[in-house]
Amino acid sequence: MKFNKKLENIDTYEAGKPIELVVREFGIEPKDIIKLASNENPYGCSINVQHAVTEIVPNMAMYPDDSMMKLKEGLSERFDVAEENLIIGSGSDQVIEFLMHAKADENSKILINSVTFAMYEIYAKHVGAEIIKTASQEHNLDEFYALYKEKNPDIIFLCTPNNPTGDAIDAAAIMEFLAKIDSDTLVVVDGAYMEYAQYKDQSKSVSPKELIEKFDNVIYLGTFSKAYGLGGMRVGYGISDARIIKELYKLRPPFNVTTLSLEAASTALKDEEFVNECIALNFEEMKRYEEFANKQKLDIIESYTNFVTLCFCDNIDSTQLSDELLRRGMIVRNLSGYGMNAIRVTVGTKEQNDRFFELVQELL
Amino acid sequence: MKFNKKLENIDTYEAGKPIELVVREFGIEPKDIIKLASNENPYGCSINVQHAVTEIVPNMAMYPDDSMMKLKEGLSERFDVAEENLIIGSGSDQVIEFLMHAKADENSKILINSVTFAMYEIYAKHVGAEIIKTASQEHNLDEFYALYKEKNPDIIFLCTPNNPTGDAIDAAAIMEFLAKIDSDTLVVVDGAYMEYAQYKDQSKSVSPKELIEKFDNVIYLGTFSKAYGLGGMRVGYGISDARIIKELYKLRPPFNVTTLSLEAASTALKDEEFVNECIALNFEEMKRYEEFANKQKLDIIESYTNFVTLCFCDNIDSTQLSDELLRRGMIVRNLSGYGMNAIRVTVGTKEQNDRFFELVQELL
Repeated sequence: MKFNKKLENIDTYEAGKPIELVVREFGIEPKDIIKLASNENPYGCSINVQHAVTEIVPNMAMYPDDSMMKLKEGLSERFDVAEENLIIGSGSDQVIEFLMHAKADENSKILINSVTFAMYEIYAKHVGAEIIKTASQEHNLDEFYALYKEKNPDIIFLCTPNNPTGDAIDAAAIMEFLAKIDSDTLVVVDGAYMEYAQYKDQSKSVSPKELIEKFDNVIYLGTFSKAYGLGGMRVGYGISDARIIKELYKLRPPFNVTTLSLEAASTALKDEEFVNECIALNFEEMKRYEEFANKQKLDIIESYTNFVTLCFCDNIDSTQLSDELLRRGMIVRNLSGYGMNAIRVTVGTKEQNDRFFELVQELL
Repeated sequence: MKFNKKLENIDTYEAGKPIELVVREFGIEPKDIIKLASNENPYGCSINVQHAVTEIVPNMAMYPDDSMMKLKEGLSERFDVAEENLIIGSGSDQVIEFLMHAKADENSKILINSVTFAMYEIYAKHVGAEIIKTASQEHNLDEFYALYKEKNPDIIFLCTPNNPTGDAIDAAAIMEFLAKIDSDTLVVVDGAYMEYAQYKDQSKSVSPKELIEKFDNVIYLGTFSKAYGLGGMRVGYGISDARIIKELYKLRPPFNVTTLSLEAASTALKDEEFVNECIALNFEEMKRYEEFANKQKLDIIESYTNFVTLCFCDNIDSTQLSDELLRRGMIVRNLSGYGMNAIRVTVGTKEQNDRFFELVQELL
């Protein structure tokens, strides 16, 4: 059977290895496996969220409220934007998918950072668009601008803080950059880890409200998968000009977020205390990674997220190290696929991090 | 901002009105609202499923097992097919989305029944494909074949039992039809309500295993949203030749099914007793709809599903009737949008159906 030609260029995204596969491949007991590979919230999710979800478990037979009334009200209040400025996806991934299909096709160009969230490129390939990458590892907005002038892309992705490197762009620099971009180019500001950046350094804090008040060609992305501790529930959102949201809505499948996920996210928004506690603990533990890296003479990228990126010199091979860690039940993210001799490690709980330090020390 | 031209032709799918909206619009208390509009299982979902999901609520922070190991094993056993023949979607809707994007584009043609599941047409519009419809209200395979010969479509959709009419095609006729279709045309056999048809009449029972053993250009679709009582959890699946599955997989976003949904569906597969009890009750209650229709001299289409379609003569207007029912807290599906002066009513519990009969009698 013949398929669309663009499928020939698509590789399947390889997610961080789930615990289930490590159990099977290496015969390690689930209790002995530590997963620091997917930047989940190591403190789980709020107990209030757990209670709310448990209460509506008997409603699983009913289709979700497709108007997403409650969650939209919550987000609208949280970000001080109108509901017509909101679209909710099965993860912010799905909002990326919508905007790619709405704005791009095989004649389009997509400008992304050299090292960034893999799904931008994958969804660009779904529509057959050309991908243009910067050369710098950090987002260099001068380079972005030069490529914008030269190549005239249809969509520009800024990921701040960036995944998988953890660095963040100054909010003021983003506003200056946006002011120079024509109104027919869509600029995506992906703030999946923004709650962490905000906490650490206000100058990195991008306000979706300010973005959309000033620009009608920008969309801000957020997620419940990270700080809110709901990675398993697949809820993300886009905040943008109502005209853009209206177009994206045309591509939204009905019932794209489950009944329990809507309840989980709505309740999570009401427990900011839990989120703030987790973020505070995250940065306390992150200090220990910085100390560890210093002691071991490893390069660590300054991180505004819940993960750290450790970069190695030639004497250490990131693939080999992560394989060795895996055999010992420690799952981290090898960044060799991103062209980096580095690993990305979620900042876990104290015990998880202790074990990581112990194992790496053994292996180095 | 300019968007892809094909978006101009897309309308947003209007799902059955959720209870939340009726509460808001008409000020009716949730407890007084009966929703017979979306063919959910009125008996809810299995208590075993509820327990299994409740138990893993604390795991919501962890991304889903993206290999979907447990659910794939369950489906593989249930249908006696290999795991490489399976793809799992966020509802079978999402599998339709994958296959549309894999096989069709703006130069493609999609052949569907005149009245059928709305998402085929909506997803066809997402890729800008041309939609060809039969004239007959029931699936007429001779007409399908004539249109196939004349128009050379890329994808043919057979929905059996058909939504929103409830009638079903003989399985033998489908096999005969498939034997006449060239191997580059993809035929979709959507069995979302197949568990009901199977129970009522074995001659309507399509075996996915037999389909894919005999044909390499067919995909069978199934769902957990109907008989399994998990409409809120968004889990469906496709069963097909491994080469087709491999291509569809390229378009599958990672983590497309939530952690709790995977658990719910895996557990639901192990409680066939619950499903069979619900189906038995469904057809007992359906008899009462048939009697009611006879008494009221209304046309009812013989149904192999968990809903009935009541067709009206000129003296009754389906839009007016469903609006009046809505004001009284009874949500049904008006089929005027499908060009039919008819309503589709989910066969509910005894009490729900009593109320429906009472209200309609009042209004006629």
